[in-house]
Amino acid sequence: MEIRTFEPKERCGLVVVITGYGKGKTTSAMGMALRAAGHGMKTCIIQFMKGDLYSGEWDGVKKLGGLVELTATGKGFCGIEGNPYSHAEHRKNAQDAVALAHDKIASGRFDLLILDEINNALHLNLVDLDQVHALLHKRPAPLHLVLTGRDAHPEIIDRADTASEVREIKHAYRKGIEPQPGVDF
Amino acid sequence: MEIRTFEPKERCGLVVVITGYGKGKTTSAMGMALRAAGHGMKTCIIQFMKGDLYSGEWDGVKKLGGLVELTATGKGFCGIEGNPYSHAEHRKNAQDAVALAHDKIASGRFDLLILDEINNALHLNLVDLDQVHALLHKRPAPLHLVLTGRDAHPEIIDRADTASEVREIKHAYRKGIEPQPGVDF
Repeated sequence: MEIRTFEPKERCGLVVVITGYGKGKTTSAMGMALRAAGHGMKTCIIQFMKGDLYSGEWDGVKKLGGLVELTATGKGFCGIEGNPYSHAEHRKNAQDAVALAHDKIASGRFDLLILDEINNALHLNLVDLDQVHALLHKRPAPLHLVLTGRDAHPEIIDRADTASEVREIKHAYRKGIEPQPGVDF
Repeated sequence: MEIRTFEPKERCGLVVVITGYGKGKTTSAMGMALRAAGHGMKTCIIQFMKGDLYSGEWDGVKKLGGLVELTATGKGFCGIEGNPYSHAEHRKNAQDAVALAHDKIASGRFDLLILDEINNALHLNLVDLDQVHALLHKRPAPLHLVLTGRDAHPEIIDRADTASEVREIKHAYRKGIEPQPGVDF
């Protein structure tokens, strides 16, 4: 059997939104980084609200031959029990992440930019709707832009080419199973 | 800010089902492989119904330092327009994939086993419900087992610890944009 290689008549950057309350949003974005690396494409991942708690993808992407750059800009999830930082402190970090995203877009070095949890950051008022619109506006046509996180704003979904809602059918933690490395983080 | 590392009190293998019609099922499974590699865990991916058409994850996983093994066993999607193979031919390949999955489980070499599109293969009668139950039964407790594909069988969802339905809100192909490397394949 011959293996075929598909090449679209026209290459164009896509805006992809992955939202919903189920497992598989960040995970899906990481899968796109892996897939892009297979094509030799370069990915930049900026994680909003993450940075306080180790996750396997941080070392996973380092193995991809320098094709993926990941920055976790946050102090943990805003509003989560036990998180000691104020809303203003979370917002400061998210604002820095937006500035970083502008820099990475301007650099022209990437084929895929993943703004992980930005939907959630917008919902929690750590970034403003206008700021996300501005990032979308600045995106050059060939750049893929992936926005993950629950509670995606309807206007951002409107601007997406592809949008998925990951719905939770069930989750292990509801029966008392703690998060497991490799699957959950 | 100190980075914390979470370690569950008890490690246990999870059964994860990712189903639905939206984008982000296989992609999510690939993200788990990447994340697991970051933890130094070993992953085996067996793709049902895929193998005729190049996808970026094939080369992406090769970059992960030998931690991920991927076999695409199929002849393309059964029933898709233009696919020249008979149902019996597709079924033969899927049956070989089930046998391979048993071998990989028996080898004890893996922490994570991804059966990509097996839900779909079951729905299309390329594998039998009893065969999927048998794989779940054979799974040793520490092994994570991920089953992707649309139309997951309710009995398989019942046996899952975590299950997500990826619902399509919109998809670029509906407005005539062809699949793009790095994002769609």
